[in-house]
Amino acid sequence: MITSTRHPLVQAFRRVGAHSRRDPAGRMLLDGPRLIAEALDAGLAVSDALVAAPVATARLAPLVARLRHSGARVHEAAPRVVEAAGTVVTSQGIVALAARPAEASDAVLDDPGLVLLVADGVQDPGNLGTMMRTALAAGATAVALTEETADPFQPKALRAAMGAAFRLPVLRLATVALRASLVARRVRIVVADPRGPLDYLAAPLDPPAAIVIGNEASGPDPAWAPVGVGVRIPLFGPVESLNAAVAAAVLLYEVARRRAGGRRA
Amino acid sequence: MITSTRHPLVQAFRRVGAHSRRDPAGRMLLDGPRLIAEALDAGLAVSDALVAAPVATARLAPLVARLRHSGARVHEAAPRVVEAAGTVVTSQGIVALAARPAEASDAVLDDPGLVLLVADGVQDPGNLGTMMRTALAAGATAVALTEETADPFQPKALRAAMGAAFRLPVLRLATVALRASLVARRVRIVVADPRGPLDYLAAPLDPPAAIVIGNEASGPDPAWAPVGVGVRIPLFGPVESLNAAVAAAVLLYEVARRRAGGRRA
Repeated sequence: MITSTRHPLVQAFRRVGAHSRRDPAGRMLLDGPRLIAEALDAGLAVSDALVAAPVATARLAPLVARLRHSGARVHEAAPRVVEAAGTVVTSQGIVALAARPAEASDAVLDDPGLVLLVADGVQDPGNLGTMMRTALAAGATAVALTEETADPFQPKALRAAMGAAFRLPVLRLATVALRASLVARRVRIVVADPRGPLDYLAAPLDPPAAIVIGNEASGPDPAWAPVGVGVRIPLFGPVESLNAAVAAAVLLYEVARRRAGGRRA
Repeated sequence: MITSTRHPLVQAFRRVGAHSRRDPAGRMLLDGPRLIAEALDAGLAVSDALVAAPVATARLAPLVARLRHSGARVHEAAPRVVEAAGTVVTSQGIVALAARPAEASDAVLDDPGLVLLVADGVQDPGNLGTMMRTALAAGATAVALTEETADPFQPKALRAAMGAAFRLPVLRLATVALRASLVARRVRIVVADPRGPLDYLAAPLDPPAAIVIGNEASGPDPAWAPVGVGVRIPLFGPVESLNAAVAAAVLLYEVARRRAGGRRA
């Protein structure tokens, strides 16, 4: 029974939660039973879990059994210790450390049906997680994150992604390297841009295609201009721009609508 | 020059920021120059502003002049006082208290071109603000918020809405009263529902229409079932649901796409 927040394991949880990218063991922090179950469903290795005892023991017994069966070390801890080890305001009685999913190989870019969401400099982890959740829902085949983009495995992004970060192939590379890979494969590059020349409804979006969403404040990186087509979502009211995750959703569901080929409409 | 966070005006800012709905004077807290400028643009009365002196004085001089001209009281304060009076982690050197926009009259529901976004029990202020920003962008004519929905004038919602909360007519009423108003006016009621019988692409969405988005966790209120049509956005991947603001965006931009009548496609 762990009763001190200074316990080395609790300190490890806090480090991973605060600076997920810097963990030498490549782990991520999972807050709450839902995300932990999603990670197990996706076949990820959970190394350690902290369960609030005795308050959460009975409620979480099935998940704890599943964790132990998977090889995880499950530790009982005082509720305030579990709360301190996690990152959410209202603790759900369990937190865990798990291995991050392996990075996808760029062979995913060879898929002729490729619908790739590119988050290029998306800063807000909530936006990034929502974009990944939407990409999986809309039938995108993979996600590419460039260097400047937030970490998809930090707690806030994981919560917003609702497990999508464990299921979608995730590529991580520099903007110029990604651009070269897409050009070499003749992937159509569609860049969301409020000042783009083409209305998204008039833009070719057929796969293989990459939908590029840029930084929330500064918009798309000029590096895409020579190789991509700037596509705008029209703004019918006095608003400067759409939220990045909303722009991604409108474009990804337009791709899905065309894939349905009017069969549903 | 205000140097203490215990100054009564600073305390008033903090109260309004933390419990915006309970302010007897009906004010809201505006964090940063952008939101303050949006409020002035919308003709809202700003009563008091706190400017970080001397650090922000020169940079914010045009906005301060505009505030004074509008009749606002502008107070200089120590930077840490401005920070304490606001709600953002990185203070932008100015915070203000302003009158909320007047509530819209339900005459807005008589518009034959009505596209009404209904947030019925949306809890997350960030989701609500993003929905309002998207509604204005997509050409919706008004927003209705039911009793259980978050306050659109609390700081996090205002930031996500990027000024849309000052420009869109906002109605606030109980679910049953809203339902009766819509039925009496023969407004088409479209309820976003992952288990709805109709694919959104096959659903009639012509104005006058109300698009109902329910609570993030529990979904649409059963009160809508007898009068509305449940419309689903298909999920092509292993995801339980879409984020509420994303669902609103997909539906509102589908309304806009049909309004364009294929002219753009």
